[in-house]
Amino acid sequence: MINPDQASGRAPASFDAARQLAVALLSERGEASGALIARELHQTIRALDIDARHGFQRFLASAFQPDETALRAAAQRYLADSTAVAAAALAQAADPPRQEVLRRMNMAPGGTAALIAMRSEIAKRFGAEPELKLLDADLKHLFASWFNRGFLELRRIDWEAPAAVLEKLIAYEAVHEIKGWDDLRRRLAPDRRCFAFFHPALPGEPLIFVEVALVEGLATAVPPLLLQDTDQDAARMRAARADTAIFYSISNCQDGLRGVSFGNFLIKQVVEELQTEFPGLRRFSTLSPVPGFRRWLSQRSGPDGVDTAMLRELDGEGWWHDRETSERFRPRLTRLCAAYLTRSPSRENRIDPVARFHLGNGARLERINWLGNTADRAMQESFGIMVNYLYDHDSIERNHEAFAHVGEIVRSPQVDALLRPSLHNDGVIS
Amino acid sequence: MINPDQASGRAPASFDAARQLAVALLSERGEASGALIARELHQTIRALDIDARHGFQRFLASAFQPDETALRAAAQRYLADSTAVAAAALAQAADPPRQEVLRRMNMAPGGTAALIAMRSEIAKRFGAEPELKLLDADLKHLFASWFNRGFLELRRIDWEAPAAVLEKLIAYEAVHEIKGWDDLRRRLAPDRRCFAFFHPALPGEPLIFVEVALVEGLATAVPPLLLQDTDQDAARMRAARADTAIFYSISNCQDGLRGVSFGNFLIKQVVEELQTEFPGLRRFSTLSPVPGFRRWLSQRSGPDGVDTAMLRELDGEGWWHDRETSERFRPRLTRLCAAYLTRSPSRENRIDPVARFHLGNGARLERINWLGNTADRAMQESFGIMVNYLYDHDSIERNHEAFAHVGEIVRSPQVDALLRPSLHNDGVIS
Amino acid sequence: MINPDQASGRAPASFDAARQLAVALLSERGEASGALIARELHQTIRALDIDARHGFQRFLASAFQPDETALRAAAQRYLADSTAVAAAALAQAADPPRQEVLRRMNMAPGGTAALIAMRSEIAKRFGAEPELKLLDADLKHLFASWFNRGFLELRRIDWEAPAAVLEKLIAYEAVHEIKGWDDLRRRLAPDRRCFAFFHPALPGEPLIFVEVALVEGLATAVPPLLLQDTDQDAARMRAARADTAIFYSISNCQDGLRGVSFGNFLIKQVVEELQTEFPGLRRFSTLSPVPGFRRWLSQRSGPDGVDTAMLRELDGEGWWHDRETSERFRPRLTRLCAAYLTRSPSRENRIDPVARFHLGNGARLERINWLGNTADRAMQESFGIMVNYLYDHDSIERNHEAFAHVGEIVRSPQVDALLRPSLHNDGVIS
Amino acid sequence: MINPDQASGRAPASFDAARQLAVALLSERGEASGALIARELHQTIRALDIDARHGFQRFLASAFQPDETALRAAAQRYLADSTAVAAAALAQAADPPRQEVLRRMNMAPGGTAALIAMRSEIAKRFGAEPELKLLDADLKHLFASWFNRGFLELRRIDWEAPAAVLEKLIAYEAVHEIKGWDDLRRRLAPDRRCFAFFHPALPGEPLIFVEVALVEGLATAVPPLLLQDTDQDAARMRAARADTAIFYSISNCQDGLRGVSFGNFLIKQVVEELQTEFPGLRRFSTLSPVPGFRRWLSQRSGPDGVDTAMLRELDGEGWWHDRETSERFRPRLTRLCAAYLTRSPSRENRIDPVARFHLGNGARLERINWLGNTADRAMQESFGIMVNYLYDHDSIERNHEAFAHVGEIVRSPQVDALLRPSLHNDGVIS
Repeated sequence: MINPDQASGRAPASFDAARQLAVALLSERGEASGALIARELHQTIRALDIDARHGFQRFLASAFQPDETALRAAAQRYLADSTAVAAAALAQAADPPRQEVLRRMNMAPGGTAALIAMRSEIAKRFGAEPELKLLDADLKHLFASWFNRGFLELRRIDWEAPAAVLEKLIAYEAVHEIKGWDDLRRRLAPDRRCFAFFHPALPGEPLIFVEVALVEGLATAVPPLLLQDTDQDAARMRAARADTAIFYSISNCQDGLRGVSFGNFLIKQVVEELQTEFPGLRRFSTLSPVPGFRRWLSQRSGPDGVDTAMLRELDGEGWWHDRETSERFRPRLTRLCAAYLTRSPSRENRIDPVARFHLGNGARLERINWLGNTADRAMQESFGIMVNYLYDHDSIERNHEAFAHVGEIVRSPQVDALLRPSLHNDGVIS
Repeated sequence: MINPDQASGRAPASFDAARQLAVALLSERGEASGALIARELHQTIRALDIDARHGFQRFLASAFQPDETALRAAAQRYLADSTAVAAAALAQAADPPRQEVLRRMNMAPGGTAALIAMRSEIAKRFGAEPELKLLDADLKHLFASWFNRGFLELRRIDWEAPAAVLEKLIAYEAVHEIKGWDDLRRRLAPDRRCFAFFHPALPGEPLIFVEVALVEGLATAVPPLLLQDTDQDAARMRAARADTAIFYSISNCQDGLRGVSFGNFLIKQVVEELQTEFPGLRRFSTLSPVPGFRRWLSQRSGPDGVDTAMLRELDGEGWWHDRETSERFRPRLTRLCAAYLTRSPSRENRIDPVARFHLGNGARLERINWLGNTADRAMQESFGIMVNYLYDHDSIERNHEAFAHVGEIVRSPQVDALLRPSLHNDGVIS
Repeated sequence: MINPDQASGRAPASFDAARQLAVALLSERGEASGALIARELHQTIRALDIDARHGFQRFLASAFQPDETALRAAAQRYLADSTAVAAAALAQAADPPRQEVLRRMNMAPGGTAALIAMRSEIAKRFGAEPELKLLDADLKHLFASWFNRGFLELRRIDWEAPAAVLEKLIAYEAVHEIKGWDDLRRRLAPDRRCFAFFHPALPGEPLIFVEVALVEGLATAVPPLLLQDTDQDAARMRAARADTAIFYSISNCQDGLRGVSFGNFLIKQVVEELQTEFPGLRRFSTLSPVPGFRRWLSQRSGPDGVDTAMLRELDGEGWWHDRETSERFRPRLTRLCAAYLTRSPSRENRIDPVARFHLGNGARLERINWLGNTADRAMQESFGIMVNYLYDHDSIERNHEAFAHVGEIVRSPQVDALLRPSLHNDGVIS
Repeated sequence: MINPDQASGRAPASFDAARQLAVALLSERGEASGALIARELHQTIRALDIDARHGFQRFLASAFQPDETALRAAAQRYLADSTAVAAAALAQAADPPRQEVLRRMNMAPGGTAALIAMRSEIAKRFGAEPELKLLDADLKHLFASWFNRGFLELRRIDWEAPAAVLEKLIAYEAVHEIKGWDDLRRRLAPDRRCFAFFHPALPGEPLIFVEVALVEGLATAVPPLLLQDTDQDAARMRAARADTAIFYSISNCQDGLRGVSFGNFLIKQVVEELQTEFPGLRRFSTLSPVPGFRRWLSQRSGPDGVDTAMLRELDGEGWWHDRETSERFRPRLTRLCAAYLTRSPSRENRIDPVARFHLGNGARLERINWLGNTADRAMQESFGIMVNYLYDHDSIERNHEAFAHVGEIVRSPQVDALLRPSLHNDGVIS
């Protein structure tokens, strides 16, 4: 859309105008013409330079407090008599006008997208400006309500999708970079599936997407999944024979929605969709990175940890191309990785974030794959180790509860075997 | 969808099952499998008989209170030091778990519709069970957020709309009954427009709709607007010549969404749509009933009010068919109606609900039409008087503010003239 | 759309203008601006009165002959040397310019619909104006090409279809009248299916549609199929249990497309669709009228035919309400009907049109149902007898060939049994 | 779709099977199960190797001749008495069964696409196998009928189009190569428009598309039109200011549809669309290549033509980068090009194909642009000269007629000026 301010060449609307419009939104005028004022407010904000915009965000965060007198009175009443009615009255008095301003800002066309962008922008300045955290919390609260699972639409994305959507996959893919349109096409071939959640207020904007490969047997390495292959018929054949769906990439697209959880729902609904389309599928598993392994290992090096000589050797370039070297490292590192991933979670033992996500969803740790991915980042993070997390319909709830209540890391016998003491002591399993 | 319980013939799921599912929704299980549990909960509720369902609603209203200890602590902290951070913490502690249960119930397919139906159902029992009012308030709060203007879609409804949508117009029309499909077709003719708001979570369910007639000059009576006329070409011609859009019917469709306001937005956006399609339109006005006029007048009868003889005569049948009688009543009743509609609003002077809606939206009282509608209900409510409220783009905000701040009833010179003392004293204008 | 001629009030365009535009369409101007001229021509024709329009149709039928000199030369060349090339040249020379005019008339928006309407109109005047038959043949030839199966779209019609489409079902239903919207709704209930062919050039216009009931066992009578029943859940249950699909009504919608066959394709593709949606279906059958039975029987009455006393009795009103009377007629009439339907087709033995359609499609005559329909028309045509034609995937081609080549009427053993001589001689089975 | 033959691993269906299926299509079986047999036939053809496929095409071309006896009789009857009825009977007898086979092959899903591919394939072998020309003529005749303007859908293509459609633009662009997705995106920017015709039987397959630039003033050179520019807002601004639409690329997509004309309709309808969207547009013009100029000029070199020295110099590389050299050539070559493009068309004077297309559509030759395009092909074909053809609504029909009847090349005064004898004689203008 043409920005009318720019088009007409007049000076950019000022910070003051934005403030006045925000105030008007909450006033009588806002009730008569809320959607119009909200539209004008967004246009005004867009025309601000970055400093003025930050100023406006601080204003939003601090100017719209609940009425102190009323809130104090409600608090006192509740303390005097803690009934349900008094609690409800207190909740109402405490409801910050900030949220109402944000709800009204949402009424304009494109309002939701603008609020998401605002949350993304303020996140970078929490350190210097902690008052922004209140605004962030309000936005997150609203987004959690607005982006309720019941309002999300699961959509399959394939080569028939609009280019405007597909280019977003290229931009947002966070796990295995998509190198242009030909690579993207491979990710959407007949033996692949890609699903995303969309929200009606953000048409054409995926919120999160997952890439799935349909294969025979558990996929334990990334390269075969990313291999270029333009034979569509062969791909169709592979899909027809597949017994396993591998979730090899899950990417959140909207930084401004962080903390609002979609991944859990996405995986589970995609499992249902795939099961319907391919009744022959017997196994649903991820092939996932282990982003925290090297960092953890480095911290444990030293006299009573792993030996620093090995770590230094692992810092070298290209050792993984030498089969002998690589096989020498394999048993120790896979055992260490098993140990890393199965530590009881505690304040000191921060669990690997990818593991936390999948275990928290009820998956189990299925397999640790030596050199499953030799791309730079994977070598850097985990010496190339990739992990399968298995989603087994019948044990998801049990696994989730075991993990959430007692911190149990549910794992396969195969992983268990890695954890048993072996003849050559690795010196780290505590 | 086939209800699996009924299909399999097993006994209807019990009230206990519903309670346990609601608890599970908020628990770990709910985090692992929320959407599934929500679906099961809705199925279970549907299978309950009406008493058990009411029991479950009471359970929902009372079982999920905020944690008392935490809330008391937060209240005390705020009282000790009323900072923005303490206010936010208090708001969070006061946020009732009830709302979180409802948000999770919304995750199931059809969840939003089920919650709306629940709110509609509990409204009838507030008298006997006031605790339900808390549940009602929570639902209303959530609906106000979920049905934010930014998430609504305005859609024109014409004869190309699905029959499943059209039959809802017939069912929901609250002002001028639609007498079957032929009558509906007239309402959708080329010189008519019908617009509705829809929400993505309620596909095919209008939330509110408005019926508009495109005419020449201000329409002052209903019958010409409802006249059967099957000549589509003539209707197209009339639309092309029209200078005025008459909003002659606005109906809310979802009882469970009462108190969540759409009408204001609807009228204003429809004005924009019509202006784009028909640049020749110069005037946007309603033709509205005056539901409270007779009641008000009856209460004022007696020695110092209107004379009771006239009221008794007006109770008779068919006097309006007699021109002489009708013309005799006309001056007094139109003046009295003008007086009724322009009283300063106060606790004693409850303003007519239709007037409040349109004046609150910024319309002005334009014209009082004697015998504008002789259908039973209109005769009953207002002796057949119908009123035009004019939406004039340039004065909407000013009108709204005047009405909201100082209770000023903005009106046309024509209405003003009715209010001036005349030669024959009506005895009521105070 | 507003007809510009009417709107501007100028005199209706004349017959001459239409003729000149038709000529222009074939000329240089037509090549530069064919679509525009075609549009103008259609507008001009629409503005003609009925006599002028007939005049224009006669003009179209007679004015655009192939070039006689060229065609004679091509004919002589072919007679001199009957090569494939000479045949092709002859075909080209014989291709009537009439068809090219019609093809160009089709270029305008709405052109196809206008040509179909024209064919429908001229059909009534073949007797008086046989030259119109050439125009009719050209239109039919073009329609057969344009409405090729490959261009038709099968669409399911349900209560979500636009009212503008649904009202056409009510208008076009030719077998069992649809009595308004409630009746229509029953035809579209969850245990019913309705499918239609559409053509992209006639959006919203069904070409042919079929109504199907999903039932248990072979349906042998109409009334249960048309019964009002508003319980949607019960209907869903019945659909889930169904083992048989009954095609109880097939209606052609476009009189102007008569002779262009769709029914054959429709039934077969609907069988495929139903089989996919309901794998439990084991049997696909019609429940069809026998329109020619009474006429045939009347012609055979007399000394060596059926006895005229019985026929006279059958002319009476309401005998079918009397069980004893009805049972008395049953054996003779079902045998006679079996005899009627299984006569070897010949010039003298014109086969029943409904039988010809289904047998020609490869169905077999499955069952003769006494009093399957007591609606007026069915009583009138066939004493209430209705017939099942069975579509059995594995024998369709064989049945079709047997019928087409040797006139064999493939039938079930049950029908065969009716044809065997019985103790009481009916006197008609030859 | 999986080719069942390949999937099951059995030997590829033979040429004989294809022949038998083609014969069956015309037989009784074809009437009972035409669509099924057609589908099987297409699968069988796809499985043939290239020689067998050619064999089948020859079979199609030669096996289905009209019945000789009947055709001879019809020819004789027509010669005896050349009535309209006899002509129609002759046309019917001459209608080749080949066409009926092709019409039935079209009934299968994907049939139309397969027939188009077949026509594309046989075109390469006319020299060696002239009998294929009959098959080609039949296909072209059917396509001209099926792809009638009335059945085509004009669709705007932008960045919201499916990638599967967009990649076809990249593949089919025939004038200015699209160098990947970024370049494509530029062609679809807000100051560009791209429109294509689609046919319902070929979903997702453009038949022809045109690329348009919205500019100020007549664009006389290609590079500014193809310039990368990612500023969407600037592009929107340019579109809002544009007074001229430049059609800078028109590409046919389906080789198998050659000879079936779409370009004429496309340009004219796009002019209408653009006029509606941008009422400020005053001028519609192409910027077109002159593919035959150098060839023509080379043939005229020698004593009485252009001097060979100049031509040799023009064969050199890069002279156009030198302003002095280029300005030296400019006057002679633009005059020569004007002369080339305005010669009276005759058997000897074959008119430039791009000129023929646009002049034949009623455009006029507007401007000759020196070095309008210095890409390789344009330098090769026309020394970089590009030409504007102007589409002026009011003179299109007149121009077309002048060109078609008397071979007049309608041109602007500016081009006329180039044709006038000048002081330095170029020696070629005759």
